[in-house]
This record gives sequence, structure tokens and C-alpha cells, in this order.
Amino acid sequence: MTKVGILGGGQLGRMLLQAATKFKVETHILENQENCPARTLCNHFTLGDINDFDTVYRFGKNLDCITIEIEQVCVEALEKLEEEGIAVIPKPAVLKMIKNKITQKEFYKEHTIPSPIFHVTDSKEELTKYIDFLPAVHKVGVGGYDGKGVELLYNKEDLSKGFDRPAVLEKMTPIKQEIAIQVAVDQTNNIVVFPPVEMVFDPTLNLLDFQICPARISPALQKEANQIATNLVRSFQSPGLFAVELFIDKSDKVWVNETAPRVHNSGHHSIEALATSQFEMLWQILLNEKLGPTDVQQPSIMVNIIGAPGYTGVAKLEGTDSITTKETFIHWYGKEITKPGRKMGHITCLGIIPEKAMETAHYLKNTIRCISEAKENTPKIV
Amino acid sequence: MTKVGILGGGQLGRMLLQAATKFKVETHILENQENCPARTLCNHFTLGDINDFDTVYRFGKNLDCITIEIEQVCVEALEKLEEEGIAVIPKPAVLKMIKNKITQKEFYKEHTIPSPIFHVTDSKEELTKYIDFLPAVHKVGVGGYDGKGVELLYNKEDLSKGFDRPAVLEKMTPIKQEIAIQVAVDQTNNIVVFPPVEMVFDPTLNLLDFQICPARISPALQKEANQIATNLVRSFQSPGLFAVELFIDKSDKVWVNETAPRVHNSGHHSIEALATSQFEMLWQILLNEKLGPTDVQQPSIMVNIIGAPGYTGVAKLEGTDSITTKETFIHWYGKEITKPGRKMGHITCLGIIPEKAMETAHYLKNTIRCISEAKENTPKIV
Repeated sequence: MTKVGILGGGQLGRMLLQAATKFKVETHILENQENCPARTLCNHFTLGDINDFDTVYRFGKNLDCITIEIEQVCVEALEKLEEEGIAVIPKPAVLKMIKNKITQKEFYKEHTIPSPIFHVTDSKEELTKYIDFLPAVHKVGVGGYDGKGVELLYNKEDLSKGFDRPAVLEKMTPIKQEIAIQVAVDQTNNIVVFPPVEMVFDPTLNLLDFQICPARISPALQKEANQIATNLVRSFQSPGLFAVELFIDKSDKVWVNETAPRVHNSGHHSIEALATSQFEMLWQILLNEKLGPTDVQQPSIMVNIIGAPGYTGVAKLEGTDSITTKETFIHWYGKEITKPGRKMGHITCLGIIPEKAMETAHYLKNTIRCISEAKENTPKIV
Repeated sequence: MTKVGILGGGQLGRMLLQAATKFKVETHILENQENCPARTLCNHFTLGDINDFDTVYRFGKNLDCITIEIEQVCVEALEKLEEEGIAVIPKPAVLKMIKNKITQKEFYKEHTIPSPIFHVTDSKEELTKYIDFLPAVHKVGVGGYDGKGVELLYNKEDLSKGFDRPAVLEKMTPIKQEIAIQVAVDQTNNIVVFPPVEMVFDPTLNLLDFQICPARISPALQKEANQIATNLVRSFQSPGLFAVELFIDKSDKVWVNETAPRVHNSGHHSIEALATSQFEMLWQILLNEKLGPTDVQQPSIMVNIIGAPGYTGVAKLEGTDSITTKETFIHWYGKEITKPGRKMGHITCLGIIPEKAMETAHYLKNTIRCISEAKENTPKIV
């Protein structure tokens, strides 16, 4: 049986393992949190730090294949494993380039991938050189995650919010729509593209954000976005599953924002809504099987279940009883403790009417909440 | 985390474990075949005989809940576990009654469930008393499985094929159609009924047999069959998932053939074709969760992949490349060795046109075959 290791045991690892039950594979997880979401679903669990060279090397050296569910891992250990003949997917060289937003942006420039112009900054002080370049987005090179490590700098006064370490200062683009396209590349370079997903953000409705698939864009824009995502992923010259985040500006030009070399939040709907889920697709890549079709079976929206503000403690899901439709799927990641902003699960709703997507998402977001038993007593600042 | 044990680790156990990944549960399997289909997907595997009292008792005594994937288990150990407070689902008393076809038939009679009239026989010799009762079906009381332990007795000459041990001699009914209805009962007696499945057998097409859902029967017959299945299952007074096999005779009367108190071959299509699969449903029962809906999402057919005649050895699946439609799902049970007649997997095909079901099933049956590397040299009898 093929032995496959995954670095990281969070919800992405968990959903990979749920999909693994359909394949002939022995699964191994490396993760330093004992009670992580992937803990109970893997064949073998190793407690350890995915950023430690020796730990990752020892974990990987008896495997046939190794992949990641998060970029922040020890790439050097993966390079050594690759040298020794272990199939590392994606290739460590690509992971290394993507992991650092500076080298990722430089790669786009070098390969003439349309992406906002940028400067590299090493310190907060250096930002003063770029006042005329504002408004811009400041992103730390390494370590940003889920919105952390990103600051919007509109004017001179904002410069103090910038990062005092290597970062990218990217020209702010007037965004009309944000989309994501996943691209799968197998070990013999066959490519399969997923339908575009639209990431919707509506600040007027309780900071509502959700995803809708297929994205509400014209066939011409879809074609262009597909082409850009496919060209980019081809240029990586690596097998793997890649999520390319793009945006469409107010003059309908398509830009690459960034890429994740792994299964991704923007592909959760694929479990129920597409012919092959992103998780099954990655197993097909890892196990050298034929890549499945990605047809949209049903239009869908996906809403993350985020730890509600003001609640920290043993997690409790509220409001699920009110969901009576058979086409709403609640995924719970099995995290014991909720805290404000933590991703605790997600909901996919099938068969939606695109024009009513906003309403459906709003209803779900306001109906299903992750809280804890007792509301924490946040001391007031007086 | 709730600890649930399953007696048996065959394909039904495997599919239960595949569904378990969506639930908060610690899974335990007891099975005496080390390389059984369920082996790699459970949290804890115990090698042992499900028919041995001590083995079953020791396996069960630290669990919260225990269920079965096959009837042939040590019921006495389950009775002791139930006495000691373990939730045994289905109840051992019902399992004991169903496990023996004699007591099962007597139960039907006692509860005025429409089922063919019968005599109990203890020996082959005793059959001679019932020559005027022929044609009849002779079924062994305990131990029959997948067509074994059943003989059709048309006339006096056939009596020699009868069983020389306790058995049921059942009046043969002129069958028009065979159907199966699964009924779920939760721990507080809520009942959910699955749509009827038709079991089709066509001896003219290479002994083709397959299942089609929903069954091609009139609404009136469906209502009657549902009522009979529901009444029967209510009379068991036990939580569990029950598969009631029924037949419709040439005058459109509905009869109960037999019942299985577990997940069943007739419910495989539910994984892709229904809103809740039979496997998810059993977990909802075991874990005291709300029972899901059973709406037909898509009409389907299901064909078993049976070890091809003449091949014994390391199994190999042939013909899968020719399946290009995205709505055909191949389930492989992970059994290493194939032998003629062994259930090796199944195929579910969605979105079928009921009028073309026979053609589709025939195509699948003739396209996908389970063989072994080298055809065995069966010595010819000369």
C-alpha cells in the first residue's frame, strides 16, 4: 500500500483524510497539536513540529510520497527527501518560491503573469521612499496567514502600520470581483482546471463573506482567467493542486493576487458541488491515478463557520436545527476550543439560485454560530 | 468521544467506516481476517472471532455502543453486554429472532405480517410429508448467506436436495417483482423509511442482476409495501437499520421475504443517489443524532462487481478506463484475492433513464470485470 504523509493536521488535512477512504493508501500525519482535526482519521499520527528539519526528515524518509496542507513547513527537509527519491508534491522548489511573497511576486514578474506592480521593502523606514506609490498593500514575505501579515496603506499616516521586516509593497488595484481557480497537475503533467469560484465580501451585511460557484463572470472573462491560471501553474513545472486567487479590476482586467500550492478554503464546495472534490483530486495526483472531471453538478455557496466574537472556550454549534433543507451540508472540523475568528467548520449549500446567493449566505451566517458554553467576561477598558 | 464497535470487517463495515469520517466517533472493529476491507479505516482493530463469547464480550465491554455488519455473531455475548448497559443496536433479542429463519418466519406469522406460508422441518426425511406442499423453497434456519443454504424444490425428485437440519419449507410464490425497503429506527423510536429499491434479475442476459432505485412500481403498491415494512419494523421494538426484502406476486399482492437487521447490499446506491446514505443513517442512529432525509436525489442503478468465473488469485479490475461518464461511481472493497462469485466491489450509476436501466446495467456488467493476473488452470473433469 502506498504510504503518503501530510505535513499539518488541520481541517484541510482532515478533509483530505475523509476523501482518502475511497483510495488504497496508508495515511500519515505530522502535526504538533495532539487533538488536531486530522488526529482520529489517519492511519498513523506523529506528534512533532512541521518546521523542524530532523522531525520532518524522519517523518518522511520511510514514506512513498509526501504533501502539505499548509505552506509553513521546513522546505529544506523536503528538499533532502526529494533528493533521496521520495515523491514530494508540490516540488520543494515551488513551495519555497510560493511560501515567500517576495519570491512569489518576483516569479510572476519574471514569467509575465499579470499581477500588480510592487516594490520589495526590508524595513518600515524604507516605506517612506514609496509615498507616491500609495495606496498600496503591504504584505510580509514569510508567515502571513488568513489575513494576518497584511496591511492596507492608503496615505502617509498609514506608513506606521507597515512591517519592519522583508515584505512586498503592492500597488492597490480597484477590485470589482475576486475569484479563485484551482488547477490540478498530475505526475505526468496532465492538467485539469476547476470552475472559477467567486469570493464575495459585503461589508454592509455584518462583514458577510462567502463563496459562490460558478463565479458570476462572463464567459470571456472566465476564459481569460482560466488561461492565466493555467499558464501560471504550467510555469511551476510541478505536480500538485494549486489554488490561484485572482481579481478582476474595474476595467475587467484579470490579475493574479496569489497562489497556494495545496488544497484551499476556496475549494470546499467541491466536496458536494463538483464531480470531483479538490481532496479527491489531490489523492489522484499523489497516487498516480487518472484525474477526475470537475463539472459543476450544482451551483453552490460556501460559508465558513467562524468562532463568534466574545466566545472563547469549549465550542458549541448553535442553530443547526433550523436547517431543514436536504441540500445544506454542515462540516464541523472537530476543534475542541473556539475563539473569535477561528475557522471551526463550513457550510455548503447546493442548488442555490445565483441571484439569491447573498440572501442565502446571509441567512446561514446569521443562523449558524459557533459559540462556547459561557460567554467570556471580557474586561472593559475604561 | 463515543466508542462504537462493529462486529465484522467486510465491505459493509468498510463503507460504515467511510461514512464515519463525518461523525464524532471512535471506531472499533472485531474481525478474524487480518486483511479485511475495514482494516485500514478503523481507529482500533481487534483480531478475533465474532462468534466466540469471550472475544465478543471482551471487545464490547469498554465500548459505549456496539452494532453488527453480519448476523452470524455471538448473540449471547451481546445479551450480556446489553445487560451491563452497553447500547447494543439492533437489540440482541431481535437479532437472535432474525438470525434463525425459523424464528423469523414464526415472528411474521405471530404478527400477521404477510409472508408465504411455511412448515418447519428438522431433517431431509421429514420433507417427504410435504410433497403436496411443493413447489416450495427450503431454507436452512441458521447460517445461510448470499444464496447459500437455499434450495428450490419443485417436485418429489428435488427432495434429495433438501437440508438435513432445522429449516423452513416455504410455499413458492409466483413472483412478479422483488423489492427492498430499508427502515431506520432511532433510539427514541423515530422512524424514517427509504425509497423502495427494485432487485432485477434477468436470466436471459448472462444471469444479469442489478438494482434500480426508485423501484418501478405503482404509487399504490409503494404505499402498501411501505406500510408493511414499517409495521414489521415497528413490531421489532428495537432501534437499528433494517432492510426488508419483499416481493410482489402476479396478482399484485405484497409479501415479506426476509429481513436483515443491518446495512445491506440493497442500500449501496444510497451513498450517491439519496440525501442520506444507509451508512450515515446507521451512524445517526448509533450516535443519537437526528435522522436525515431519504429523498431520491437521482434515479440510480447498482451492479455488484463479482469475481469472474475461472479466476482465483490477486484481484485485478478490468475495464474501468472505458467508464468516462462522471456519474458512474466504482466502489472497490480492497479485497486482495478474487474468487468466482466473491463480492469485490460495486458500481452505482446515477441519472439513469429507468427505461434504459437494463441496457446500462448490462453494459456495466460486461465492461467491468474482476479477474486475476493469470487465469487459473482448472483441472478438467474427464
